[in-house]
Amino acid sequence: MKTHKRLGILTSGGDCPGLNAVIRAVVSHAIMTYDWEVLGIPYATKGLLERKAIPLSRHGLDLRGIDPLLNMGGTILGSINKGDTLDRIDEIIASYQYLELDALIGIGGDGSLAILNKLQIAGNWQFIAIPKTIDNDVALTDRVVGFDTAVNTIVDSLNRLTFTAASHDRIMIVEVMGRSAGHLALHSGIAGGADVILIPEIPYSIQGICEHLKELRDNWGRRFAILIVAEGVKIADDSSMYRSSQIPNCGIGQYIADEIRNCSHNELDIRVSVLGHIQRGGIPTALDRLVASAFGKAAVDLIAAGESGKMVAWRNGQVEAVSLDAVLAESPLYVAANSYLVDTARALGIYVGNTEET
Amino acid sequence: MKTHKRLGILTSGGDCPGLNAVIRAVVSHAIMTYDWEVLGIPYATKGLLERKAIPLSRHGLDLRGIDPLLNMGGTILGSINKGDTLDRIDEIIASYQYLELDALIGIGGDGSLAILNKLQIAGNWQFIAIPKTIDNDVALTDRVVGFDTAVNTIVDSLNRLTFTAASHDRIMIVEVMGRSAGHLALHSGIAGGADVILIPEIPYSIQGICEHLKELRDNWGRRFAILIVAEGVKIADDSSMYRSSQIPNCGIGQYIADEIRNCSHNELDIRVSVLGHIQRGGIPTALDRLVASAFGKAAVDLIAAGESGKMVAWRNGQVEAVSLDAVLAESPLYVAANSYLVDTARALGIYVGNTEET
Amino acid sequence: MKTHKRLGILTSGGDCPGLNAVIRAVVSHAIMTYDWEVLGIPYATKGLLERKAIPLSRHGLDLRGIDPLLNMGGTILGSINKGDTLDRIDEIIASYQYLELDALIGIGGDGSLAILNKLQIAGNWQFIAIPKTIDNDVALTDRVVGFDTAVNTIVDSLNRLTFTAASHDRIMIVEVMGRSAGHLALHSGIAGGADVILIPEIPYSIQGICEHLKELRDNWGRRFAILIVAEGVKIADDSSMYRSSQIPNCGIGQYIADEIRNCSHNELDIRVSVLGHIQRGGIPTALDRLVASAFGKAAVDLIAAGESGKMVAWRNGQVEAVSLDAVLAESPLYVAANSYLVDTARALGIYVGNTEET
Amino acid sequence: MKTHKRLGILTSGGDCPGLNAVIRAVVSHAIMTYDWEVLGIPYATKGLLERKAIPLSRHGLDLRGIDPLLNMGGTILGSINKGDTLDRIDEIIASYQYLELDALIGIGGDGSLAILNKLQIAGNWQFIAIPKTIDNDVALTDRVVGFDTAVNTIVDSLNRLTFTAASHDRIMIVEVMGRSAGHLALHSGIAGGADVILIPEIPYSIQGICEHLKELRDNWGRRFAILIVAEGVKIADDSSMYRSSQIPNCGIGQYIADEIRNCSHNELDIRVSVLGHIQRGGIPTALDRLVASAFGKAAVDLIAAGESGKMVAWRNGQVEAVSLDAVLAESPLYVAANSYLVDTARALGIYVGNTEET
Repeated sequence: MKTHKRLGILTSGGDCPGLNAVIRAVVSHAIMTYDWEVLGIPYATKGLLERKAIPLSRHGLDLRGIDPLLNMGGTILGSINKGDTLDRIDEIIASYQYLELDALIGIGGDGSLAILNKLQIAGNWQFIAIPKTIDNDVALTDRVVGFDTAVNTIVDSLNRLTFTAASHDRIMIVEVMGRSAGHLALHSGIAGGADVILIPEIPYSIQGICEHLKELRDNWGRRFAILIVAEGVKIADDSSMYRSSQIPNCGIGQYIADEIRNCSHNELDIRVSVLGHIQRGGIPTALDRLVASAFGKAAVDLIAAGESGKMVAWRNGQVEAVSLDAVLAESPLYVAANSYLVDTARALGIYVGNTEET
Repeated sequence: MKTHKRLGILTSGGDCPGLNAVIRAVVSHAIMTYDWEVLGIPYATKGLLERKAIPLSRHGLDLRGIDPLLNMGGTILGSINKGDTLDRIDEIIASYQYLELDALIGIGGDGSLAILNKLQIAGNWQFIAIPKTIDNDVALTDRVVGFDTAVNTIVDSLNRLTFTAASHDRIMIVEVMGRSAGHLALHSGIAGGADVILIPEIPYSIQGICEHLKELRDNWGRRFAILIVAEGVKIADDSSMYRSSQIPNCGIGQYIADEIRNCSHNELDIRVSVLGHIQRGGIPTALDRLVASAFGKAAVDLIAAGESGKMVAWRNGQVEAVSLDAVLAESPLYVAANSYLVDTARALGIYVGNTEET
Repeated sequence: MKTHKRLGILTSGGDCPGLNAVIRAVVSHAIMTYDWEVLGIPYATKGLLERKAIPLSRHGLDLRGIDPLLNMGGTILGSINKGDTLDRIDEIIASYQYLELDALIGIGGDGSLAILNKLQIAGNWQFIAIPKTIDNDVALTDRVVGFDTAVNTIVDSLNRLTFTAASHDRIMIVEVMGRSAGHLALHSGIAGGADVILIPEIPYSIQGICEHLKELRDNWGRRFAILIVAEGVKIADDSSMYRSSQIPNCGIGQYIADEIRNCSHNELDIRVSVLGHIQRGGIPTALDRLVASAFGKAAVDLIAAGESGKMVAWRNGQVEAVSLDAVLAESPLYVAANSYLVDTARALGIYVGNTEET
Repeated sequence: MKTHKRLGILTSGGDCPGLNAVIRAVVSHAIMTYDWEVLGIPYATKGLLERKAIPLSRHGLDLRGIDPLLNMGGTILGSINKGDTLDRIDEIIASYQYLELDALIGIGGDGSLAILNKLQIAGNWQFIAIPKTIDNDVALTDRVVGFDTAVNTIVDSLNRLTFTAASHDRIMIVEVMGRSAGHLALHSGIAGGADVILIPEIPYSIQGICEHLKELRDNWGRRFAILIVAEGVKIADDSSMYRSSQIPNCGIGQYIADEIRNCSHNELDIRVSVLGHIQRGGIPTALDRLVASAFGKAAVDLIAAGESGKMVAWRNGQVEAVSLDAVLAESPLYVAANSYLVDTARALGIYVGNTEET
């Protein structure tokens, strides 16, 4: 293993806050501690295929020493959500050789990491993965880059929506990201004071929601309500207005609104808010910056130690390296129906779908 | 005019940040300076009709002297958007007498103020109006309660969306409030770095947008774009895919997306974000708190001076009283096509609809 | 153990964000799940001594169902930093009996929890502790209420200070809280892009700082610098201007400024900012609300299960109960000189005091 | 007047949020509308003296089209607070010629603008000024760049401090910027819910403050208090502990604390917070970005129209050009003791110094 390295770094999959903080940490540590060369590969495997690489330096992004990376959401390297990468493995391996890379650090969610893992095996690359995803569904790590900022963004939106819902005694339905995992909805719903949290992992019924809203109003004096719904939630089994294939055009939030309007005999004033892409953006929180910095540092050290095929992970308050194969064998990580946070939500009087007894 | 008064206060129409700061200022000044009694009328004219009134005191909302009102969006008094008020004028006047009110302060936008004006004339009430609206379309005042916070909320969302749009080279279309007036879109679009601003007052063309996006990409290296569209924007005259009555179910933003996708031959990655009710909520900005405080103080002083049928207004850096009839004769206030801010937007390279020469 | 309980709750020691979220969770769960009575004891043991108690209800703090507690920093119950409590144990035990309390939940840092532990042993109370502290120095738990918000508040301030330091090529020294533990300075310094982090646990030298600043300027083009200093840092061994007893009146930040001014021969433009009490305030972050909610729920369940003398703790991603005696035997928790975060800071080129080799 | 121009731009004096938004607007408009060349002069007149200039382009600060300038506080051009400029007028004029500048836009407060005005007269330059200052003390304009953000930063800090003050029944004294003008303290004190506002323009007495605090506690149930003090406030005439020359080392806030401690016979728990340089930093508010954009656009148009010796100003809701000589003849602009905002503060029960009757 030679001492000097030409290290590539890329960001893959949907963007999130904290990616630039990872890039900053990797570049700083690789250059200042190890005196390596660092190349940024734009647009993930697409840039690799096109043999593009941007030299990154501690100076490169500076204006008189000002480094905006810590405060910027998104990724300066650009990213792609998916590509035709796996059809062109040989070309990508040839690009890697053409660029004379000695090692690669890839930041991605479970989809991107699966692709990158196949590439590294095929190309026999030295490769270290860093987990990022606002969905929080990568296995074997307690923390990923981006999740904490996304939760805070949603909580901020819930605060805003609560003020206006309360002023007009409205039912406010808030659709958030989460196609198969409901961590975002669960965490932000508890922290943001929701009355109902619907996530893909836990079955619910229209009747259950309607009864809960009635109880809140009749017994607890709450004249408005906040419902948070993950986008991946399906039509309920006891749906009276829709069949399972009929999610409305404007999203699952609209469906819930239609059903509640129906079960309340049009007596409730109901509004739907689809938070959309604002959940991906934003200045990263302190925790996301800290996790990003610790992960970036650890990934560079793993490269220096000759490791490969590992993912950096936050486990039990420490940064560790875990086998990427093991992570991918388990991902995605879903919300367990009996998890402590689900119980906490219910203890606070939040409807989180039907309990088994019901 | 007797010295002691029983003063009513109500908030009417869509809620916005700063209403509670107005209530706080009115209650503080009326009680501490004039030693009056203040009654909050819940849910605007609906509460009046139902003869409901909540005694407000400087202590009332406090927890050991902590006053949360300055920091809370929305209105603790509740509000309604519209009612059957004008059909029941006699009942409302009887309620006013029943509650033994000497004077009323009403906070609302131009729709609410028009209703309240009719009531005060019919009932011969002593009435002072305070303008609030996130649409900024009340005439004869430079500032209204709520607008500054809404603009800042949208700018914050634009920042978030810019990070993610830039990471994926996307066209991000952001639909904001504004049925007939485009102030919100124009102010936040300039402040938030938009590339295109579409408002109801200024005609635009699909071709104009598409050419602008192409120029940004080809000449100025901008690989993504942010388009802000007021919800009240209509189908363009040169629309190729839709007719004027066909605004898509999910909003005008979706229409613009479909047309751009078409004119770009599906080469652009386009997303739509409908900001929705988060624009109404939020902790009020310093300016909205200041305007709310100054307006609340002025309204109480006008009552004390025996005035009626006036609206407090911010004009030329001063708080003045203007005739409510005169305001209503002019409202709503639209964006002038030749206004300084429209020119500023164009100077910054923003497409704001077609100029007359085109 | 009878089913119905009269539960007391108090907050003790320096306030922090998230205390109200704990109170909200305890009240909600105790009332809605168990149908208990909950009494808030104002001003910690002082209120207990004075036999004061405020009935708390899910309605109590509401305005038409609006619950401001999640969004409010501080504690509605009030708190005291220290008192003459231990001299008057018998009186306090008599008060507890007078109020007919069946159990008590106390929220505090290690100092407060030590006092409460002595009281519960003497009085044979059923007592459960919840850890809170912006210092993050309570043992046997990975998370405490309040720390995450405080870190984010400091990072926000560092962002602001970086803009102005960079505009004027200044050395900005930022003094933060932390009398004996440096967690706040370490976490926020890494997340906020500091160049130097000084904490009580790690020795430093004036020469080390001065050389580091010179290297940043000469080798890395950084024309300004951000230094974060915990208030508990002592005079350096190689101090040339001060002796160990001579910390300047305005704080340790002023001392560091004087020494750097000296070693730079007055060529650097140096400013000091003492963040002060803004570090304690603020709307709690999502994580602090989540931890507060989970801890509040767990504490109530422990009371229901007949447990006493335990502290709820976040360990390995789960909420657990640990022995309060064991916690107090280990607290306070300091930054370990070889911790992963210290290594991360150094990897990012931050001076964190002298390494052992030096 | 030739059509093509080489335009210089510099920022002078203390930095503030929005300077980069001005630079962005000037560069965009000058390049895209007029096809001029724009040179940034670093560090104000110091850079001019050293004949330094940085070519600015719409691309220059971009990363794949991402423009961070709108969101960055401070100034990428750097600034100086004062220099030996006026001693070296001939050299600076020679530098201007050496750089072949056709025109200059200078952004500064009244001190910087006075220096730049002398230079432009001596050098017969084409010069347009843009006003910026967090002190808001430039005459003949209703708005300046930077003030709105600074007010919001202070209000955010007051919110934080209110939570902690209320939790401990403390008197919190907050020292803010403002050496001779009290606009910052007055605006943020009203918006942030202060109980006492002390500004340089209005005399106050220790007795007046102490009586006001007593009344708040005894009559209005406010067990804590927030006092905001501009740094330029002097020792009170009825001071019992200090003489006029004795402002304590750590600032005027410390003096007020000592006096209140004395008049309360040490019964009050009093803390001092000096906000310091965080008031200068921060992401600019929407209003500051809008004013910055409109001013930048107007300044370029004035250059194009052949104007010189003018300052852009916001007057009566419009952007106008006013004579720089006239502005400097009137600046600094102080708070008038009978201004509407002072009356508003008093109406809200805030002590703002002695009224004339007292």
